[in-house]
Amino acid sequence: MPDITAVKTALADQRVETPSWGYGNSGTRFKVFAQPGVPRTPREKLDDAAKVHEFTGITPRVALHIPWDKVDDYAALAAHAKDRGLELGAINANVFQEDDYKLGSVCHPDAAVRRKALAHLMECVDIMDATGSRDLKLWFADGTNYPGQDDVAARQDRLAEALQAVYERLGDDQRMLLEYKLFEPAFYTTDVPDWGTAYAHCLKLGAKAQVVVDTGHHAPGTNIEFIVAVLLREGKLGGFDFNSRFYADDDLMVGAADPFQLFRIMHEVVKNGGLDPAAGVAFMLDQCHNVEAKIPAIIRSVMNVQEATAKALLVDGEALAAAQAAGDVLTANAVLMDAYNTDVRPLLAEIREEKGLHPDPVAAYRASGWQERIVAERVGGEQAGWGA
Amino acid sequence: MPDITAVKTALADQRVETPSWGYGNSGTRFKVFAQPGVPRTPREKLDDAAKVHEFTGITPRVALHIPWDKVDDYAALAAHAKDRGLELGAINANVFQEDDYKLGSVCHPDAAVRRKALAHLMECVDIMDATGSRDLKLWFADGTNYPGQDDVAARQDRLAEALQAVYERLGDDQRMLLEYKLFEPAFYTTDVPDWGTAYAHCLKLGAKAQVVVDTGHHAPGTNIEFIVAVLLREGKLGGFDFNSRFYADDDLMVGAADPFQLFRIMHEVVKNGGLDPAAGVAFMLDQCHNVEAKIPAIIRSVMNVQEATAKALLVDGEALAAAQAAGDVLTANAVLMDAYNTDVRPLLAEIREEKGLHPDPVAAYRASGWQERIVAERVGGEQAGWGA
Amino acid sequence: MPDITAVKTALADQRVETPSWGYGNSGTRFKVFAQPGVPRTPREKLDDAAKVHEFTGITPRVALHIPWDKVDDYAALAAHAKDRGLELGAINANVFQEDDYKLGSVCHPDAAVRRKALAHLMECVDIMDATGSRDLKLWFADGTNYPGQDDVAARQDRLAEALQAVYERLGDDQRMLLEYKLFEPAFYTTDVPDWGTAYAHCLKLGAKAQVVVDTGHHAPGTNIEFIVAVLLREGKLGGFDFNSRFYADDDLMVGAADPFQLFRIMHEVVKNGGLDPAAGVAFMLDQCHNVEAKIPAIIRSVMNVQEATAKALLVDGEALAAAQAAGDVLTANAVLMDAYNTDVRPLLAEIREEKGLHPDPVAAYRASGWQERIVAERVGGEQAGWGA
Amino acid sequence: MPDITAVKTALADQRVETPSWGYGNSGTRFKVFAQPGVPRTPREKLDDAAKVHEFTGITPRVALHIPWDKVDDYAALAAHAKDRGLELGAINANVFQEDDYKLGSVCHPDAAVRRKALAHLMECVDIMDATGSRDLKLWFADGTNYPGQDDVAARQDRLAEALQAVYERLGDDQRMLLEYKLFEPAFYTTDVPDWGTAYAHCLKLGAKAQVVVDTGHHAPGTNIEFIVAVLLREGKLGGFDFNSRFYADDDLMVGAADPFQLFRIMHEVVKNGGLDPAAGVAFMLDQCHNVEAKIPAIIRSVMNVQEATAKALLVDGEALAAAQAAGDVLTANAVLMDAYNTDVRPLLAEIREEKGLHPDPVAAYRASGWQERIVAERVGGEQAGWGA
Repeated sequence: MPDITAVKTALADQRVETPSWGYGNSGTRFKVFAQPGVPRTPREKLDDAAKVHEFTGITPRVALHIPWDKVDDYAALAAHAKDRGLELGAINANVFQEDDYKLGSVCHPDAAVRRKALAHLMECVDIMDATGSRDLKLWFADGTNYPGQDDVAARQDRLAEALQAVYERLGDDQRMLLEYKLFEPAFYTTDVPDWGTAYAHCLKLGAKAQVVVDTGHHAPGTNIEFIVAVLLREGKLGGFDFNSRFYADDDLMVGAADPFQLFRIMHEVVKNGGLDPAAGVAFMLDQCHNVEAKIPAIIRSVMNVQEATAKALLVDGEALAAAQAAGDVLTANAVLMDAYNTDVRPLLAEIREEKGLHPDPVAAYRASGWQERIVAERVGGEQAGWGA
Repeated sequence: MPDITAVKTALADQRVETPSWGYGNSGTRFKVFAQPGVPRTPREKLDDAAKVHEFTGITPRVALHIPWDKVDDYAALAAHAKDRGLELGAINANVFQEDDYKLGSVCHPDAAVRRKALAHLMECVDIMDATGSRDLKLWFADGTNYPGQDDVAARQDRLAEALQAVYERLGDDQRMLLEYKLFEPAFYTTDVPDWGTAYAHCLKLGAKAQVVVDTGHHAPGTNIEFIVAVLLREGKLGGFDFNSRFYADDDLMVGAADPFQLFRIMHEVVKNGGLDPAAGVAFMLDQCHNVEAKIPAIIRSVMNVQEATAKALLVDGEALAAAQAAGDVLTANAVLMDAYNTDVRPLLAEIREEKGLHPDPVAAYRASGWQERIVAERVGGEQAGWGA
Repeated sequence: MPDITAVKTALADQRVETPSWGYGNSGTRFKVFAQPGVPRTPREKLDDAAKVHEFTGITPRVALHIPWDKVDDYAALAAHAKDRGLELGAINANVFQEDDYKLGSVCHPDAAVRRKALAHLMECVDIMDATGSRDLKLWFADGTNYPGQDDVAARQDRLAEALQAVYERLGDDQRMLLEYKLFEPAFYTTDVPDWGTAYAHCLKLGAKAQVVVDTGHHAPGTNIEFIVAVLLREGKLGGFDFNSRFYADDDLMVGAADPFQLFRIMHEVVKNGGLDPAAGVAFMLDQCHNVEAKIPAIIRSVMNVQEATAKALLVDGEALAAAQAAGDVLTANAVLMDAYNTDVRPLLAEIREEKGLHPDPVAAYRASGWQERIVAERVGGEQAGWGA
Repeated sequence: MPDITAVKTALADQRVETPSWGYGNSGTRFKVFAQPGVPRTPREKLDDAAKVHEFTGITPRVALHIPWDKVDDYAALAAHAKDRGLELGAINANVFQEDDYKLGSVCHPDAAVRRKALAHLMECVDIMDATGSRDLKLWFADGTNYPGQDDVAARQDRLAEALQAVYERLGDDQRMLLEYKLFEPAFYTTDVPDWGTAYAHCLKLGAKAQVVVDTGHHAPGTNIEFIVAVLLREGKLGGFDFNSRFYADDDLMVGAADPFQLFRIMHEVVKNGGLDPAAGVAFMLDQCHNVEAKIPAIIRSVMNVQEATAKALLVDGEALAAAQAAGDVLTANAVLMDAYNTDVRPLLAEIREEKGLHPDPVAAYRASGWQERIVAERVGGEQAGWGA
């Protein structure tokens, strides 16, 4: 049986990074429903993130998106974060919301557009230098909508060229995390559609290039935990963008659609050493809260990750290995399910209390008055959202 | 072999309805890329639609979306259409873009929101009275994002109640076309997710309620032509919203992603009497042109429907029936494929020329100067798009 | 909060039917792996089923498949069952394993084959008369592999004709349960591919025709619990064939692939009255145990259904309804998840002990010596399997 | 515009390899329908393959499956082939039909089973030495059905070890083609589920290890032609297993389910140099003919590949590149579609006649009397099938 002290330590030490854009408005192509109290500025996003950290105790880092979080003085932004017990996390380089990017960014057929996109990526590394961020997260909306629209292989060449240039610009302690996605917004080809493509590029680039697994970016039926195990075995798992989905890239709260899948993913993470901070796996949220209140939804998501992790840590590894070696399918499966079927909420409540936190972070947030305060205070201005 | 004269007549008589919103800007949740020359008003949309009809000769009807196409004087709008050789087609009732509709419209848990949505549907029937439109097209964005969010069966009750009220309001020559969609914008349940649900509601409502098949609204692997055949057999196929997809509801040009599927659909339409105008099947486009020029994309889409229809009409029904009766799988398949593999573009060019049209509608449009003119003239104002 | 006594009573009264063929060998098209001790005769299948009932206490009924379970004297078979505390359940009519059925059974283009298939269905009703079975379960492998192979609508006509004939033959207390399946073994069209098709046929037939939901028979992304809720609302849910899947119709143990989905299904069953025996919903297993030991796998599957049901019964309906009415998405979801996250295994162990059963049915079976006995005794003869 | 002489030469030189097992009986887990005249021995399979080559003129090579095609004297078998104008092609190593392989072959938890499987692979290389085959095709049915059943990463280690041993055994002119498959017969994890996994293994092994793309082995929505383009760009595309599917690994005739997809695949092949024999891409069929006559189905499949290739060769590369460079989405797509919409059957008939072949291979086969002859002569014995 797992040592409960070690389990508790691992859970207490776990960190989940939250994304600045998750505090802003989001939606579908049909409608973005605005919510009262939503931040208007990067600083207000950090203020909300600080509340999530205050009640969960494990979310000190906040990922930024550039240009959404563009500010004049990143050192000042970092100081604002530090004052609230936070630090700035991954820098996400968005190259998909300017008119020039209609047919792509670094894969665009026009070299001028590619240069512009590359310059933005370089600027993001400059920002990393200023914020002290370790990770440059690259997700490209690049692709095509129609067969014949562009040359698939040529686009790979252009992609490789841009990635190489950025890679060379990275500092010694900086990494490039390359994200893949099956489709959307491109509807025929996507230039980095699967882990194999991301892996092939990262392998050529070198040790500082790693793959990011966004749990909503796969074809139906894809076994995500298999990919996780393989990437960890290859030393190429840079991190996660957590969310969940029933259909496409629905971006629901992580663990909401298939909690058993999240557990299986965390089982492979734990079993293959990915939970060890030395492994360098970044655990990040990347979700939309279109119809639910944002801050408590993020708190709930963090808790869902904790619960899945707790269950994964509770798997009786010796019993599992013994059943596997014996080819006892039912017992091996039962060992895994025993951990999954355990109610770990009391254990996590205990860990929180030992840290001086309220055992129920959502209830604590609701009682804190923060929501009422931001609704009252954040009046006027332009709410942060997909485009800002 | 099919009688070529009858084939030509059927093709000459075919009508495809284009949607007003297809002439405006569209995009994904990540970005709507604006295009120069896009209409600012319903009248300008009709002006563009008139060009499509001018060069294809088979698109006299234009579907409206309310409130996007809301005007003070629908009779004047209808006259504007008539002046251009057009008439107003289906009225689409949009109840998904106001803040009240965050958790649904006619299925919303709050009766006040349901009343508001119903009032909008009723207003759309008023508009039909003014425009002379036959069809009220109902697609509901209603659904839930999270398990437990609302009561699935209660939402069905609310839906049934609203549909019944609208049904009773319809005039003798008016119909209600109920559309289904697997998902998006709702990501857990959708209140009309499949043809079975739409069919069950329409059956209870009566003969004026019919099902609409949007070719992009199905789960992966769904055999759409089977649904078409079954709905025709049941007398419940009200029409099509044509588009195409590789992944989800991509809304690409019809026939672009899987031309063979479009052919198979039209084969079932032809074989089961759906091409006969008396069958009352409305053939409508419902697509986005996010990265391609809009008017020529719509022309191309109309041509794709024509080509699929031509191939379906060329199927040698006698040879097919004989092979089917004999259980000769390969020959039956070969008969169908012979028609599909035929290059029908010369035949369609001939039909166009017999109508006095240019044999190549896209080339004719490009040579017409219309695109240059609208780009030059439509300056200022707010371009029509998803939200306007 | 739910009344715990009522919850315990409902769980104690729950019944799950096991399928005779699940005790025999099964596999994929690539290989059927035989297991030692597998039954050679229908009576030996019943002997195994009696063990499952002995340790679970809730599986008194066993479904038969004809011709696999064909015997000369069904009254004697029923007596054999009764002696072991069992009764014979649904009769499954298999019309897919004779050479005549290569192109279909009741939908075959050749009337002679259709007559043969219909005669088999009628014989199955005769058997029901002899066994006292209530339900005739109809799953048709009918369909086509290639476009054009047969006439989709004509096949519906043939299907309707056969179903009508069988329906008229049913006794007053007998039902017809019509099962749908997306694909396999047919790979282009299936004649009853979805719930809509099954529903449309059942509706025309009358009250004794009901739809069966096999949890593995849907397209990726299908919301099965929605279908369950709709069919219950329509009074047309006849029963379940339980199993689970990651990909296609994998026929894994129910609850093994997505336990949260099973819970959501049972939540809709409970909420919409389907657990009440008066609702007439038959809860049946229909699975393959290709690589795992069969009897303990069936016991485990029964336990998985119990656990999902227990969680569904523990949902706080009042709190859920209040949150739904208030449009509080997060709280409504949390109420549902609270029940799901509860460890119900102690409760079920308690219920078993109150019935005089061992709290851990799998352990009890393993300790019983039955497996060793059948391995030793069932030597020679032909093991039951897909084809026998 | 493409040079028509070059197009004709490329088509005349194209080669498609047919699989010995395709001439035998096949089916689904529900039923294998036997067909009269099916071969009983590897020699009879070659006799049938010779007919396919006689009428198509482009199928001189036949892939073998070991142990299905095990013979005492491979030199004699090769001579039998040569006498009929054939040569023996790829050797497929089947390690999935013995009881030992229930939990896997080279990935099995038991080292003894792994040794047995490896010995079989080594024997297959011995056979290659005897037959002069270039390619060892490896598809592993290995995987697990239940979460926890085995250790995902450990199975990768075992796989890598076996592949390395086989790789070292290969002669200078021999290759290892590693095939991937999403699922089936394993239903939770598959040990080589996607191109990324196959690619990662091949990369480490070296230049003689290449990836095989089976067109039916992907998740829904996967863009196969993208994978083809990427593998060609990486120099890692070893060959194709052609077939088609609407749902899972349906193994229908190639081009039957989605002829446009086959064209897009061949477009990437042509555009990226894969049609050049020097590229070493093996074009193989790998299909089931469960309900249709086998030999004409294989002929038809070969023709489908030819038609898709012809269309791909007819793409106006200059016009396409110009439109792509200009970002003219509609024109680029139109250039591709112009080639696809061309009826290439007359061109292929012409090429056949120039080779002295009948323009319609299926008609020629039917008129040849071969089918009648094998039905009459191949009486008694055991027909070849999945298991023999």
